[in-house]
Amino acid sequence: MFDYHYMQLAIKQAEIAYKNNEVPVGAVIVLSGKIIASTYNMTITLGDPTAHAEMLAIRKGLELCYNAEMYVTLEPCPMCAQAIAFAKIKRLYFGAYNPQGNIKTFIPEIYGGILESKCSFLLKDFFKELRNE
Amino acid sequence: MFDYHYMQLAIKQAEIAYKNNEVPVGAVIVLSGKIIASTYNMTITLGDPTAHAEMLAIRKGLELCYNAEMYVTLEPCPMCAQAIAFAKIKRLYFGAYNPQGNIKTFIPEIYGGILESKCSFLLKDFFKELRNE
Repeated sequence: MFDYHYMQLAIKQAEIAYKNNEVPVGAVIVLSGKIIASTYNMTITLGDPTAHAEMLAIRKGLELCYNAEMYVTLEPCPMCAQAIAFAKIKRLYFGAYNPQGNIKTFIPEIYGGILESKCSFLLKDFFKELRNE
Repeated sequence: MFDYHYMQLAIKQAEIAYKNNEVPVGAVIVLSGKIIASTYNMTITLGDPTAHAEMLAIRKGLELCYNAEMYVTLEPCPMCAQAIAFAKIKRLYFGAYNPQGNIKTFIPEIYGGILESKCSFLLKDFFKELRNE
């Protein structure tokens, strides 16, 4: 089960973010008691809206995220939640609940089905080949 | 409105992914008729589950994504959809519909509220300071 020690390390990362005028969120990934990544939110520093603590941690941990545990100081947003799922992180421990966690702050206009058959043909073909291998 | 030309460029990117044995998805970001980023899915090549075409495009475009248009050959997954929203991309054009688009392929165990007050204090403090500036 969870170890407060790692959440405290995540909080230390959040404190670094705070000092850098970033929204203070920190994350730590642990695999078999070994720290794979410890990161903090760098969206402003990098000018990159995807540079949340969790995303940076996953990009640092890469394949080592598989079956690992993530400690993060704030409930992940949908982007990070899906990334955590893709990374096959086994357990997620978070600190603060985020009431805005599931709100997209800005919704673009969305138009689907453009050159749909051409776009989907490539995918169908790819997975067909994969199944035949 | 949308321009087939850019979707064709996105398809070309997807074709490169295909040749690299990656799930064939391509993305292009356009701002005022200028291509800001054109990318393809590189999850296997980079060993990075977040390296979807859209994420790579946003990370290439950075601040230039604001008010831009994205063309992507496949309906974005929740990770990319949220990233597109964060990047403040104005319009999203996609090709193929993704029936699995909203399915998290792997759900980790989730535990919230760990050292909650300590984690949330930092955030509350940060936003309080921000409001007082």
